[in-house]
Amino acid sequence: MDKPTRTIISRRSRPAKEPLSKELIIKTALELLKSEGPSGLSMRKIAKALDTGPSSLYVYVTNLQELSAYVLDHGLGKMALPDVQEGSWKTNLFDALNSYLMVLYETPGIAELALTTIPVGPHSLALTEYILERLHEGGIRSTSAAWGVDLLLLYPASVAFEQASRNQKGSPLHALTASYQTLDASRYPLLAGLKDEMTSSGGKERFHWGLEVILQGILNKQD
Amino acid sequence: MDKPTRTIISRRSRPAKEPLSKELIIKTALELLKSEGPSGLSMRKIAKALDTGPSSLYVYVTNLQELSAYVLDHGLGKMALPDVQEGSWKTNLFDALNSYLMVLYETPGIAELALTTIPVGPHSLALTEYILERLHEGGIRSTSAAWGVDLLLLYPASVAFEQASRNQKGSPLHALTASYQTLDASRYPLLAGLKDEMTSSGGKERFHWGLEVILQGILNKQD
Repeated sequence: MDKPTRTIISRRSRPAKEPLSKELIIKTALELLKSEGPSGLSMRKIAKALDTGPSSLYVYVTNLQELSAYVLDHGLGKMALPDVQEGSWKTNLFDALNSYLMVLYETPGIAELALTTIPVGPHSLALTEYILERLHEGGIRSTSAAWGVDLLLLYPASVAFEQASRNQKGSPLHALTASYQTLDASRYPLLAGLKDEMTSSGGKERFHWGLEVILQGILNKQD
Repeated sequence: MDKPTRTIISRRSRPAKEPLSKELIIKTALELLKSEGPSGLSMRKIAKALDTGPSSLYVYVTNLQELSAYVLDHGLGKMALPDVQEGSWKTNLFDALNSYLMVLYETPGIAELALTTIPVGPHSLALTEYILERLHEGGIRSTSAAWGVDLLLLYPASVAFEQASRNQKGSPLHALTASYQTLDASRYPLLAGLKDEMTSSGGKERFHWGLEVILQGILNKQD
């Protein structure tokens, strides 16, 4: 009878030590961000996960801030920007921003980076250029376009960050709903009267309403 | 000759141990938030600063989430809501939101709480009611008012959070400006053409522009 084949089990999860590269560092950082949240994004933890020292990482990235921008951009690679041959400029604009929101929602930790990082990676730049193109088609140019794209990108990022944080901290919407039910109506009459509308989640509808508001406002503010 | 009076120096900074109270816990938490940032807001650290055990804190606050709401609200106590007898509804609305932004700017760590905490303290509620009143004066009611106040409050909070994070992480606007200067204009022609407008800080003016956009949009979206 043959001896059973011996399987050598590596102590590390990867079958062989993948050579260190910028891509590997970014991927590892994104995994840590997903699993541990913002505190996972540290040079020390990334180095540890890669079985190396932090100083090796600095060969590939200047600092944590630069790495954060790469991680955000890697995450944004999942976005789907609509084909401009189909649909109106406005539909395409809203669909692109919706795709941005979805990516920020789906990848924990990424929404915070969207608010705290200077977005200069290729996917960030492509999204910004895409939105500027749609605004241009809609007749929005110059400062209105520049400040408008900023506002249009800030909105999904803050909605996603707010939502992600509340989920993570265990204070979802029903906590707000509950506290609004006990509001002192003599002190806060308008708020008490609107409590149902205030807490109506309506997720997608409400987000779309916000985009409409911002776009209408930009169109109106043009001189 | 009299013996010199002996001064007993306490090992703790407070002259006598102030009795534990909800107010003292909130003040201590706010100090820790200011000095250490979001990571300072932990029950363990607050307890340590108060020379007690975390379990003593739970007599006064249910959990960290509830305490965070109190801390935010304590910070918002500094806001100045304009006298409604003076100025138009719109001026008062914008001044109130500007005061909100200033408080979030001035108190490090508080902007994050504005995005991540359920705002149910008296100052938060007073601000929300104040804005609803101004919108009501301006003819904005029902769902437009409820969703509008949410958007109007989200905007200063995310602007302040974005700014605070970038300052803290050492990636101020000039980093963005620098990277926009080297943009590939053939790939991102609109962005390259607008790079000066994109990075024109114009702080106050730009924030005001955003408020105008949102308000005009809400007025326009009304049915």
